[in-house]
Amino acid sequence: MLIEKTVSGFLDEVASNSAAPGGGSIAALAGALGAGLTSMVCRLTVGKKKYADVEAEMQQLLRQAEDIRAEFTRLIEKDTEAFNSVMRAFSLPKDDDDQKNFRSGAIQEATKSAALVPLQVMELCERTLPLALEVATKGNVNSVSDAGVAAEMLRAACISAALNVRINLGTIQDDSFVHDTSLKAKSILTSVDQKSVEILHHVNAVIGSNIRS
Amino acid sequence: MLIEKTVSGFLDEVASNSAAPGGGSIAALAGALGAGLTSMVCRLTVGKKKYADVEAEMQQLLRQAEDIRAEFTRLIEKDTEAFNSVMRAFSLPKDDDDQKNFRSGAIQEATKSAALVPLQVMELCERTLPLALEVATKGNVNSVSDAGVAAEMLRAACISAALNVRINLGTIQDDSFVHDTSLKAKSILTSVDQKSVEILHHVNAVIGSNIRS
Repeated sequence: MLIEKTVSGFLDEVASNSAAPGGGSIAALAGALGAGLTSMVCRLTVGKKKYADVEAEMQQLLRQAEDIRAEFTRLIEKDTEAFNSVMRAFSLPKDDDDQKNFRSGAIQEATKSAALVPLQVMELCERTLPLALEVATKGNVNSVSDAGVAAEMLRAACISAALNVRINLGTIQDDSFVHDTSLKAKSILTSVDQKSVEILHHVNAVIGSNIRS
Repeated sequence: MLIEKTVSGFLDEVASNSAAPGGGSIAALAGALGAGLTSMVCRLTVGKKKYADVEAEMQQLLRQAEDIRAEFTRLIEKDTEAFNSVMRAFSLPKDDDDQKNFRSGAIQEATKSAALVPLQVMELCERTLPLALEVATKGNVNSVSDAGVAAEMLRAACISAALNVRINLGTIQDDSFVHDTSLKAKSILTSVDQKSVEILHHVNAVIGSNIRS
């Protein structure tokens, strides 16, 4: 399992001459880092007298962020599996028409799955950003930069996943699948971009009020 | 060592109720992922007949990207160490004026170091993006989305590191240090933003020419 490798070993694997894990798994990992930082700020807020008013809300945000982090973590693996399935379909025999048809159908199915995994990453990013906004505005102010980093990781995860959705759509012949998936991806991208910019502005305003530059 | 933890264990550590590893180390990790993907695209390009014209260039880009990846990887650890040094300085005794002065000086020095580590991350992002642009435009076109993800990771790493530079500048009393560091960070942010947007446009154009959405 990729997530059982050391961070150092995972980075070596990314940099290796194998296409997997590639951008899709990295997008899921960036999402998991964003959700993880959101959880961290929740945990650095709960139990503190100064933040007693938001204690219950932070506890709830923490549960949600941890559930999402687990989903992102599963998708790190799933994206690489989906990519490998596409490669396996391409390597099916194509000696006669029956084989060619079977292979072509298998490639189409595997590529659809490979497009849907990064779409799931995008959906998770969209679900996590409202949590990151809450912790950025109501959580422990000493950790406000961490909430900002969470937002940046989620935005980068979403844009990265979108590239992986689109590159897979390029070889899918089912027009309505391409159309629907593409529309969903565009809508999520817009929403994630707006929300992450909102968080970054807030975080920069809080930090900026403390420095004299 | 953080990088000797499993990916799964590292994510748990990020999400835990300890402030380190926090946004600064995550920024360095995102940078390492960006450099790693850049290396991967180089390795998926070299040795291929179709890309014989750029073979030497890709070999050189690979060496540069791998050197930078090693530096980013060191900074994952170094950022957490710098943060812990600030915490240790804050916990020094402050029973009399001598102790207070010593403690205050130690806090200032440790915080300067904690600002300079993310500044190094930013400088590395600025050095890596031209490599990512080369691989996006000249490398294996099948991996163009990975070059795009590399650019996104580097941009997110840089913006994240900038937040960590700025939050540390907030408590530094040396005005010329604050001024100089802040200027450097702003200049890098502008350059990194431009370059990463340029790469993303290119990648989207290449991918977009293949899909009918």
